[in-house]
Amino acid sequence: MELVYEGKSKRVYRRGGVLLLEFKDEVTAGDGARRDAAPGKGRLAAELSAMLFRHVEGAGVPTHFVEYTPPRTIVARPAKVVPVEVIVRFKAYGSYLKRMPVEPLRPFSKPLVEFHYKDDKLHDPLVLEEDVVEAGLADAGQVQLMKKYAASAAEALRRLYEGAGCDFVDVKFEFGVLEGGGLALVDEISGDTFRLLCNGEHLDKEYYRKTGDVAGLLKRYEALLDLTRRLLAR
Amino acid sequence: MELVYEGKSKRVYRRGGVLLLEFKDEVTAGDGARRDAAPGKGRLAAELSAMLFRHVEGAGVPTHFVEYTPPRTIVARPAKVVPVEVIVRFKAYGSYLKRMPVEPLRPFSKPLVEFHYKDDKLHDPLVLEEDVVEAGLADAGQVQLMKKYAASAAEALRRLYEGAGCDFVDVKFEFGVLEGGGLALVDEISGDTFRLLCNGEHLDKEYYRKTGDVAGLLKRYEALLDLTRRLLAR
Repeated sequence: MELVYEGKSKRVYRRGGVLLLEFKDEVTAGDGARRDAAPGKGRLAAELSAMLFRHVEGAGVPTHFVEYTPPRTIVARPAKVVPVEVIVRFKAYGSYLKRMPVEPLRPFSKPLVEFHYKDDKLHDPLVLEEDVVEAGLADAGQVQLMKKYAASAAEALRRLYEGAGCDFVDVKFEFGVLEGGGLALVDEISGDTFRLLCNGEHLDKEYYRKTGDVAGLLKRYEALLDLTRRLLAR
Repeated sequence: MELVYEGKSKRVYRRGGVLLLEFKDEVTAGDGARRDAAPGKGRLAAELSAMLFRHVEGAGVPTHFVEYTPPRTIVARPAKVVPVEVIVRFKAYGSYLKRMPVEPLRPFSKPLVEFHYKDDKLHDPLVLEEDVVEAGLADAGQVQLMKKYAASAAEALRRLYEGAGCDFVDVKFEFGVLEGGGLALVDEISGDTFRLLCNGEHLDKEYYRKTGDVAGLLKRYEALLDLTRRLLAR
């Protein structure tokens, strides 16, 4: 089993024709500037990702997900990752506030889809669709497809959590081109990659960013997993 | 005569139904962090702007320009300024390189038009067209019109200087809504707002940004004015 990639939150191994994404028991913030051990987080993120990949597939968005291998691994199809983050925003928060000075959580008249170039040194800057094409990161058709898939997946998640009266604020997606062709949602879908407010409280990594409290974050991630399981079982 | 605005490079007065833009004999860089006296610069920028406003009008782009009042004032129609900068890029340079790490002066396959929110504290960040509309800075139709006018004006300038074998790299425009309605190009068009390489040498403010040499900049601005006059007389 060959380690093909190690990121801040996952180790990725190749085994035969598939990838194994092993979620780490660690939490980081600020491009990795802060890092803490977080026992149990790997399982929480892997299990939640598995459920949510299945959920967005049901909304017509292809993903790399194959199956969940407890406790903290998901099996996925290999894909050449497009080095952009596709962010869908329903309300203003996070880096949006650094470019447009509006009050936090101001809702958008329609969901905003934006591309960021994945580059820690440049701090994942906002880029234009034209930049993605011009740099050869994806072609114009793939850019439009990423927008469409990201919007569909985000809307599926927003509606899911709306069922519990929660406020789905924004989400970051990554995409890849599967071996054999075809664009698919890759990486993970978890409290590390979206912001969700339930009763005004963050059930996502924002809680850790703001407080540094790992135990509190794990409690929230447990609640998020339970909530998601209940909502999907409806 | 009422002073209605003082910016880094101009004082703007209102006199009856028109504005007087008085160009300062000063040069600044880095959001005003560096500032130098530059005797004669006001005249060079005012005269060049006057010529180039007329030139882009000839390319079908409405502007606020009325007439040039020597030595360093232009008369303009009053307009409510849209607080965005519209940048047109033919080649990668400046802030583009901070979001996409390509080699400087790499040409784009087609001109890139981008919007930046005018806010010194936020360092004039890149924003999306949707952001401009969402924040109510302009409506969707005005955004498309700004793109169209900016592209036309930039192309007219690129072609003008191409006549001398020079390389028109990028340009920053500002727009306003004229009293009585109608979007128009406002502000100035000069070596302070575009980048132009002739024989590999900057005939624009980049020279001052890089060297701090005011006398050298003024020499280049004289050369730019002479060159422009010759090209327009053809």
